[in-house]
Amino acid sequence: MDNLLKGIEEVLLMGPGPSCVHPDVYKALSRDTLGHLDPYFIKIMDEIQVLLQEVMNTKNQLTLPISGTGSAGMESCFVNLIEPKDRVLILINGVFGKRMQEVSTRLGANVDTIEFDWGTPIGPEVVKEKLENNTYEVIATVHAETSTGVLNPIAEISKLLKGRDSLFLVDVVTSLGGIEVSLDGWNIDASYSGSQKCLSCPPGLAPVSFSDNAFSKIMNRETKVPNWYLDMSLIGQYWQQDRKRVYHHTAPVNMLYALYQSLVLFKEEGPSNVFKRHVECHLKLKEGLKGLGLEMFVEEPYRLPMLNAVTIPDGVDEAEVRKRLRMEHKIEIGGGLGPLAGKIWRIGLMGHTARIENVERLLKALDAILN
Amino acid sequence: MDNLLKGIEEVLLMGPGPSCVHPDVYKALSRDTLGHLDPYFIKIMDEIQVLLQEVMNTKNQLTLPISGTGSAGMESCFVNLIEPKDRVLILINGVFGKRMQEVSTRLGANVDTIEFDWGTPIGPEVVKEKLENNTYEVIATVHAETSTGVLNPIAEISKLLKGRDSLFLVDVVTSLGGIEVSLDGWNIDASYSGSQKCLSCPPGLAPVSFSDNAFSKIMNRETKVPNWYLDMSLIGQYWQQDRKRVYHHTAPVNMLYALYQSLVLFKEEGPSNVFKRHVECHLKLKEGLKGLGLEMFVEEPYRLPMLNAVTIPDGVDEAEVRKRLRMEHKIEIGGGLGPLAGKIWRIGLMGHTARIENVERLLKALDAILN
Repeated sequence: MDNLLKGIEEVLLMGPGPSCVHPDVYKALSRDTLGHLDPYFIKIMDEIQVLLQEVMNTKNQLTLPISGTGSAGMESCFVNLIEPKDRVLILINGVFGKRMQEVSTRLGANVDTIEFDWGTPIGPEVVKEKLENNTYEVIATVHAETSTGVLNPIAEISKLLKGRDSLFLVDVVTSLGGIEVSLDGWNIDASYSGSQKCLSCPPGLAPVSFSDNAFSKIMNRETKVPNWYLDMSLIGQYWQQDRKRVYHHTAPVNMLYALYQSLVLFKEEGPSNVFKRHVECHLKLKEGLKGLGLEMFVEEPYRLPMLNAVTIPDGVDEAEVRKRLRMEHKIEIGGGLGPLAGKIWRIGLMGHTARIENVERLLKALDAILN
Repeated sequence: MDNLLKGIEEVLLMGPGPSCVHPDVYKALSRDTLGHLDPYFIKIMDEIQVLLQEVMNTKNQLTLPISGTGSAGMESCFVNLIEPKDRVLILINGVFGKRMQEVSTRLGANVDTIEFDWGTPIGPEVVKEKLENNTYEVIATVHAETSTGVLNPIAEISKLLKGRDSLFLVDVVTSLGGIEVSLDGWNIDASYSGSQKCLSCPPGLAPVSFSDNAFSKIMNRETKVPNWYLDMSLIGQYWQQDRKRVYHHTAPVNMLYALYQSLVLFKEEGPSNVFKRHVECHLKLKEGLKGLGLEMFVEEPYRLPMLNAVTIPDGVDEAEVRKRLRMEHKIEIGGGLGPLAGKIWRIGLMGHTARIENVERLLKALDAILN
């Protein structure tokens, strides 16, 4: 039979993830598989935890990659922290905030929401008002809304929660490794990301981190976590460094090699250099798009460098443009989701994708197609 | 910093999984990442579904790999099929039957069990008696008990369920790709496996399959599946070939390349040749162990070829033997789980591990250590 893998072409991944993968990460991925309880593999696990704590800026012991994609990270944060009837407030300004609402509603939480226009950031004033007359077990929002390209003011929201008992749950899927993320600095209690965004590893792992307060809530639940696979009290026994490793499920060994390598690359380049590279690419893209007569969808102060939402000009067949980019130029960009479908393109500049030559290649291709 | 990946040695994986990975599968793993909605990637997805249907012997449309390890497969079968208070019967004779009990209890099912001595198979007579006075929404058991090395009589149990309304849920984690598995022949309604056993792909994916009856139960649930990540009605919309692909979560693209390649290798060698190779290695191992004075834990008719439970002789420090195998001979075998810890070794002959030269290497190493 024909082997389809032979026909895979290298595509420049400039969508909302997965992003381009560094050659060293591909190499890591195909290293010899070790057993999930092998002493040498456990050394690698230990180091992954340390590297994740560094990129997330946290001392949280319970920091590890979940064996699933970013959405499994979201599921794991909610299913561990929520018990039926818990009051949850979700601050929504895009698809991933909406998904938080769906996930926590399914888990039986008593869900309250504040929704902001998609393309604008969460407004701390509105949140402050809401908090004056309400208490919640969990308050959740998204740092970098992948569906709109908006940066939310997590530090400001965090300040509003000081002195309250609520656990603060933040999605850092698209931000982690591309802009500063500081779990401890922002008093975040539970957070999750994905391997395939700015960490530039293939999709399949979801780094998560839980504060001592969050862990304590998990250990004092009245009911068992209704999801054995994602029960952090069990997964923690496999990952925690100071205890005997207890088998829970077979870890995705080769994916973990890849994540390790991508975290090493991040550390070697240095966070400030990585963040600078993302900003430079973003500015270059913004200028280039302007030259092509295209406009950014999000106002300047709230724009994410790694996820650029671009307004589709009137009369342009947006799907056709993406198709031609993919087929003629081997470049992938993303379309809009939900109410933004057909209205924006999403151009990712994440991790290994965020290089000036990639921006130039995209601009040239867009110019050829649009003009 | 030192890169730990450079220190990874090739270990002969003869434990209960992960098993040895074929060089072509490693190569597949590090092919260029494509987007999860890329048209070429979707072709590969389509082919994975066809190949999975073949190895599982089913026409079930809803046959696909879950983005998680084998345990996520178990979770997905139960969480989709069970609603609170549903009556579930679990036939238990090892760790993985016990885990089914734990998973379904957490989901609020009304769980009934029959437990058989570990190391012996499920007895259809006892099941028959139980069914005379009871009805269940779901009846679940394990085909190949990885914790004991016992083959359960799924075809016989299946016959007992004829004419009943119960859905039949079977774990084929360790059996799939090593002995015959026939979902349609055995009227199985929901089944899951893992990539890292006889399919010889690294851990990280869980092939699952749901019959039309199972799918109908999912679509007619009174409550939404309390697990957004594993909701088959949503995942199905991303995988189903005859509908528009709807984004659910970012698929683990490179792991799927690896699974594709391992399924291609299975098909190219041919199921009957693969199964024969497993039996030959098992017989060779059994003879060799006998020569070393070691005894099989399971009676002959119920022995799995790919998972050989060996009774640890009196006076042998079993952990020390496993440690020396790993350190001096670069071979991994498994210990016992739960009540069998310290009583058995588990020697895996799964997929690419099941080669005569590997059996000979292990026997030689065991001889050097024990004698």
